[in-house]
Amino acid sequence: MTAKPPQVRSLAQRRADVQQKLASEQDAWVASADASGAVHLVPLSFAWVGGRVVLATPGSSRTARNLRRTGWVRLALGPTRDVVIVEGTLHEQATNADPRLAEQHAAAVGFDAREEPGYVFFIVTPQRIQAWRTPAELPGRDVMRDGIWLEE
Amino acid sequence: MTAKPPQVRSLAQRRADVQQKLASEQDAWVASADASGAVHLVPLSFAWVGGRVVLATPGSSRTARNLRRTGWVRLALGPTRDVVIVEGTLHEQATNADPRLAEQHAAAVGFDAREEPGYVFFIVTPQRIQAWRTPAELPGRDVMRDGIWLEE
Repeated sequence: MTAKPPQVRSLAQRRADVQQKLASEQDAWVASADASGAVHLVPLSFAWVGGRVVLATPGSSRTARNLRRTGWVRLALGPTRDVVIVEGTLHEQATNADPRLAEQHAAAVGFDAREEPGYVFFIVTPQRIQAWRTPAELPGRDVMRDGIWLEE
Repeated sequence: MTAKPPQVRSLAQRRADVQQKLASEQDAWVASADASGAVHLVPLSFAWVGGRVVLATPGSSRTARNLRRTGWVRLALGPTRDVVIVEGTLHEQATNADPRLAEQHAAAVGFDAREEPGYVFFIVTPQRIQAWRTPAELPGRDVMRDGIWLEE
C-alpha cells in the first residue's frame, strides 16, 4: 500500500484559509513569558477586526502582565494538524476607549469585555503569520512577513 | 429563550476524559521560553506512555534548547473549548536509550524518532493537570496536583 503524497496548498490558498480562519474562529492559544523565562499558555477568545487580533483578558492576569512586559505575542490557532501561528506587536487599550472596537469584539466572541470588571484589550498587529497542515507544508509556511501578506 | 446552564463535569469524569484524551491524541501545543523571556509555541507529536508524556524533537531546535534550560514544560491539548493543560518536570533522553519506549512512542505518533537524525526525547512527568470546557468548569479545573491524580 502506498500512502498518497501529502497535499501542499499554494500560497494563495493558505492566505485565503488563514484569513477565513481568523475571521471565523473564536479562540487562540496565547503563549507568554515573564522576565525570568517562566512560560504561560492559555486559550483566549479573540476577534479579528480590521486586520488585527483583539484579545480581552483581566489586566492583572499573568498573561496580561507578560504581554505588557514584552509588547510581543505568539499565538496559535488549531487544531494541531491545521496550524496558524500569528506573531505580532501589541498595545494595550481600555475596553471603553473605542466603542466600535468593543462592539466588533463582542459580536465575534459572544461577550462584552466592557462588562467584565478589570478586563483590558490587547490589540495585536500581525508581523509574521505561518500556516501548515503537514510537514510537507513546512517549507512554504510563511504567509506574512514584516506585516505584509506575501504574494506569489 | 433561556440558555441551558453549562454542564459541569465531575472530577471523576474529567479525570477519565483527560486520561482518554492523553491516550488518544497525537499532538500537543508546547510552550517554552529562553532565558530572556522570549516565548516559543509549536505543536509537537507526543505519546502517553506509563503516565508520562513523551515528546520527540530535534535536539538543536529552539524548543529543545528552551526545555533543557528550564526542565519544566507547559503543554496544552485542544480544542480550546475542551482544554487539557499539563505541566511537569522533564528529562532528556537519547532516542535509542530505551528501545521499548521508542517503540511505544513510534506506535503512538506514527514515526520512529530513532530514524530522525538529531532527534531526542523529552520525557515529561506531569505535576499538575487542568481540564475545562467552559468557564463554569474553571473552579474545579485541577485533576492532578503535585503529581497525584485528585480524588473526590
